[in-house]
Amino acid sequence: MTEHPVPPVPAPSQPDISGPVFEAHEGGKLESVPTKPLRDRADLALLYTPGVADVCRAIAVDPSLSFRFTTRRNTVAVVTDGTAVLGLGDIGPVAALPVMEGKAVLFKHFAGVDSVPVCLETGTVEEIVEAVARLAPTYGGINLEDISAPRCFAIEEQLKARLDIPVFHDDQHGTAIVSLAALINAAKVVGRELETLRVVVSGAGAAGVAIANILIRRGVRDVVVCDSRGVVHSGRTDLAEHKVRVAATTNPRGVTGVLADAMVGADVFIGVSGGSVPEAIVATMSSDAIVFALANPDPEVHPEVAARHARVVATGRSDYPNQINNVLVFPGLFRGALDSGASGITEAMKLAAAQAIADLVEVPAAELVVPSVFDERVAPAVAAAVAAHA
Amino acid sequence: MTEHPVPPVPAPSQPDISGPVFEAHEGGKLESVPTKPLRDRADLALLYTPGVADVCRAIAVDPSLSFRFTTRRNTVAVVTDGTAVLGLGDIGPVAALPVMEGKAVLFKHFAGVDSVPVCLETGTVEEIVEAVARLAPTYGGINLEDISAPRCFAIEEQLKARLDIPVFHDDQHGTAIVSLAALINAAKVVGRELETLRVVVSGAGAAGVAIANILIRRGVRDVVVCDSRGVVHSGRTDLAEHKVRVAATTNPRGVTGVLADAMVGADVFIGVSGGSVPEAIVATMSSDAIVFALANPDPEVHPEVAARHARVVATGRSDYPNQINNVLVFPGLFRGALDSGASGITEAMKLAAAQAIADLVEVPAAELVVPSVFDERVAPAVAAAVAAHA
Repeated sequence: MTEHPVPPVPAPSQPDISGPVFEAHEGGKLESVPTKPLRDRADLALLYTPGVADVCRAIAVDPSLSFRFTTRRNTVAVVTDGTAVLGLGDIGPVAALPVMEGKAVLFKHFAGVDSVPVCLETGTVEEIVEAVARLAPTYGGINLEDISAPRCFAIEEQLKARLDIPVFHDDQHGTAIVSLAALINAAKVVGRELETLRVVVSGAGAAGVAIANILIRRGVRDVVVCDSRGVVHSGRTDLAEHKVRVAATTNPRGVTGVLADAMVGADVFIGVSGGSVPEAIVATMSSDAIVFALANPDPEVHPEVAARHARVVATGRSDYPNQINNVLVFPGLFRGALDSGASGITEAMKLAAAQAIADLVEVPAAELVVPSVFDERVAPAVAAAVAAHA
Repeated sequence: MTEHPVPPVPAPSQPDISGPVFEAHEGGKLESVPTKPLRDRADLALLYTPGVADVCRAIAVDPSLSFRFTTRRNTVAVVTDGTAVLGLGDIGPVAALPVMEGKAVLFKHFAGVDSVPVCLETGTVEEIVEAVARLAPTYGGINLEDISAPRCFAIEEQLKARLDIPVFHDDQHGTAIVSLAALINAAKVVGRELETLRVVVSGAGAAGVAIANILIRRGVRDVVVCDSRGVVHSGRTDLAEHKVRVAATTNPRGVTGVLADAMVGADVFIGVSGGSVPEAIVATMSSDAIVFALANPDPEVHPEVAARHARVVATGRSDYPNQINNVLVFPGLFRGALDSGASGITEAMKLAAAQAIADLVEVPAAELVVPSVFDERVAPAVAAAVAAHA
């Protein structure tokens, strides 16, 4: 015994795993279920040896039969390396798994698409492309998810060139498609044509770049993209390769300076940056402004604040009107691609998907520019639009 | 019109896809099903954003939580490159998919293990190891399947060394475990100790090598392995590396020559070669011989022919007694490994699994050396035996 008792060693910091969220995730959120009965030896002989050998032989002769007699017909891999997960950043593949499972739940729920998480140890662009290409024969489509920029651009491009199944980076194109859908209806609300709008995109990562691209393709002429250092323009010498391309295709008025400079007189703000935009800056936008503050869970500007200065306000949040969420896109998009046997996702498919989502809102209004994420008409409408362009 | 009509061009040879086997495989044999309800925005907020971020954060701090809050807890990847599928050979990853799906059906049916096919474009040992290691964070275990020898040996060894989840090449060890189980009981039927048996293994591929190894580990002293050129012995100069190891650990009497030479006076024949063994050769075995003719669908010797000369006859076929099938092993083995959090499959686990299967036959008899593949006691017994050694 000492006179001076040793103070208790503090317990190592353990995560708190109590509460309804952890209860909902206990044991994972997916299971792999047989669709055919296995009752007896006769079933076993059909589903497994020796019967299965006939199916293998047939597919070896004609690989397209794999899209009829295997799970490829309806299975999408949700692939990540965990380098850009939600707002959490680079948390690694294992910690990303709950998100990929959640995505798989949404695929099945909204569009009957079977999907499986594939969480990869991260690596170079080449290593990730190599890994995904090697396992592609298992699946009917590849949904890339939460891969950090700028790697995500090259990874998607190389996989699209290499594979003959749909490859779709949802953080880019899902966000872009649903943002365009919302903008089509928001423009109606304020009585403007897309072609005449001045648009500011805050964020030059996966989502920001893809939003700028799809808006331009849809006819928007004046798109200014900002990154953390300000307006992306061709006079800057600090631009990564993907931003050089952004500079070359956007900003026709040659705006320079910071976000506040770009916002003066802008008609549309689309935030996918996670930064914060002061009210005073929003106040400099044009009358009848449109604000999509999509950062989650904290929008770039609070929707109630934005509403003081903008006619249409949307966020990614479910507790305010106009929830702009990728779940309006990816289930139906892959449903349409799988059903039509599409070998890839084209720009025409993306535009058609956006229009189909917009068209489901019969009378667009300030608080109704996109359908509810639970609107059961969405996935079939998106699927039909995509399949029509396959 | 010509006087000599052109003969009709024969249609390109298309596979016949009619009949009950193809009906059973229509649309694939698995689906990916949510285990948690998604009824409304509240559920969405728990299973997906924003709630899921809490689970991701917790796993990022403590990756072992992935075995509680994700599908890793219960999910095994059935990985192949399609280079050695059933008796069909190198048919490629897509054509192998029906077998992997069938395996996944069996995993779920017999042991409640969720499993997903992963069919990889083939490559070098290093490329396959790299691909599997990269996607390992997604799974609780890796079942390697139908990968050609000798590549399968190095691929399994390297993955076992590199990963901290169970890796198990079923063509090797599943076959070896169930063969040992059957031999334990067959030896009882003929009143012999394993240690005294002379065993001939025909086939020095994945199964043959693993069978020889497990028999020796279990105490069998006299194992002679034959490949297509005859007895594997250390005097041969044409042996691949894995067969050099076989030569060093088997054949204590220094047998040379062909299979017929090895079979004279042998107590046990285990065929995993796909070749054919004439009746006259079986007739040279000892009295009370044991014949396991495991090639599928055509055993090395027909069981009725073998029965004229052997006291115990087993095959891989379901239409004869004593069906020696890996399905007695792999579902329970992974069940036990997952439930016990084992980081690998040890030799002790394999021996315990074999003993557990053998022990389920209360009174071994010539036509009952292994339980039925539909015996529901098997998977739990194997799981318990494996878990006890984790």
